[in-house]
Amino acid sequence: MEKKKFAVVLSGSGVYDGSEIHEATLTMLAIMEEGAVYQCFAPDIMQHHVVNHLSGQETNESRNVLVESARIARGDIKPLNKFRADDCDALIFPGGFGAAKNLSTVAFDGPNARVNREVEYVIREMITRHKPIGALCIAPAVIARVIQGVEVTIGHDASTIDAIKKMGSKHVVTSHGQVVHDETYNVFTTPCYMLDATILDIRTDASLVVKEMMKSMEAQ
Amino acid sequence: MEKKKFAVVLSGSGVYDGSEIHEATLTMLAIMEEGAVYQCFAPDIMQHHVVNHLSGQETNESRNVLVESARIARGDIKPLNKFRADDCDALIFPGGFGAAKNLSTVAFDGPNARVNREVEYVIREMITRHKPIGALCIAPAVIARVIQGVEVTIGHDASTIDAIKKMGSKHVVTSHGQVVHDETYNVFTTPCYMLDATILDIRTDASLVVKEMMKSMEAQ
Repeated sequence: MEKKKFAVVLSGSGVYDGSEIHEATLTMLAIMEEGAVYQCFAPDIMQHHVVNHLSGQETNESRNVLVESARIARGDIKPLNKFRADDCDALIFPGGFGAAKNLSTVAFDGPNARVNREVEYVIREMITRHKPIGALCIAPAVIARVIQGVEVTIGHDASTIDAIKKMGSKHVVTSHGQVVHDETYNVFTTPCYMLDATILDIRTDASLVVKEMMKSMEAQ
Repeated sequence: MEKKKFAVVLSGSGVYDGSEIHEATLTMLAIMEEGAVYQCFAPDIMQHHVVNHLSGQETNESRNVLVESARIARGDIKPLNKFRADDCDALIFPGGFGAAKNLSTVAFDGPNARVNREVEYVIREMITRHKPIGALCIAPAVIARVIQGVEVTIGHDASTIDAIKKMGSKHVVTSHGQVVHDETYNVFTTPCYMLDATILDIRTDASLVVKEMMKSMEAQ
């Protein structure tokens, strides 16, 4: 049987201005542990800003989302405009503020967030084919903004839940070790670092969401 | 019983100019899976250079090792000069070119490499106390430069093996799933991305080296 192919969409490298590194790494590990393979993608755009992860302060640097994401992917990454839904079986978004600052403006505009056009396009392409989409941490809010009415989880953060509801989407409160599956749109979400967490919780959640996505593909 | 405390020494964030991200993340995961805890450290120095991980080319940026390492540590990291050997049970160095470019000059000077003074100091402090030191990928070459006569592995890369021998240290050829333990100095090494590898191999090697270090501490 041919291996299932996951597209992993990154948003930079580092929790405060890009992809959360543990979530991205443990998603990639989970995919390979399930006997599937992955290809990383990221939009070739500038980051909203650069945050010094030691001080938490914004710096005056500028960095590119694709170039920084390549750090997590060890250079093996493609620009998101090269993504073809017909060439992959599943799509997954690790979290980190990059999803809310670079892939979208959720961090600044909440329910009125804009979503990067390429990101919106790849989500819609997968939905049209009923192929599974996974999203971790804050990334489910991006899906909720693109697909009004989708049911997702980001854990239990009140203001993010409020934003998701104002987008016209639905939210289920969860803890670690739980995945919400919206069967209509075939979207799988899990809270990860949106809750208090250690790297052990991220391991659990990333592993579980990938397992559930694999199960849904095998059931078809 | 009190949890064992690991100090994880990072060298930036990204395989070509810092810590290899998968090795660092999976080392941290392995430590917590073994019921131990970790504190990240990195020297507060400028990186040797910055590499665009998409193109592989050097850029004209400059970045700080501690600040970039904080991306992997989610901000929870201390400068290496705050390290106290009496406060920890074990020390471990993930790999990546940062070990050979920032923590030392192994990448440029091979057997004649200089080692950052703080890095040399923390290694010697642990050796004096016979507390375990772990090193992944290219990082064992740094240990080999500090402790002449130590037996390590970096897999089977001929020129690195030659450099280690010229340093006056010993090398054992290994594959994934193998750890070399030097009992005299209590040093544990494993090849990781110094060999052809997927993230599954890194998972295996990082997990194994941490397990072996834990076993040595429990045996005492």
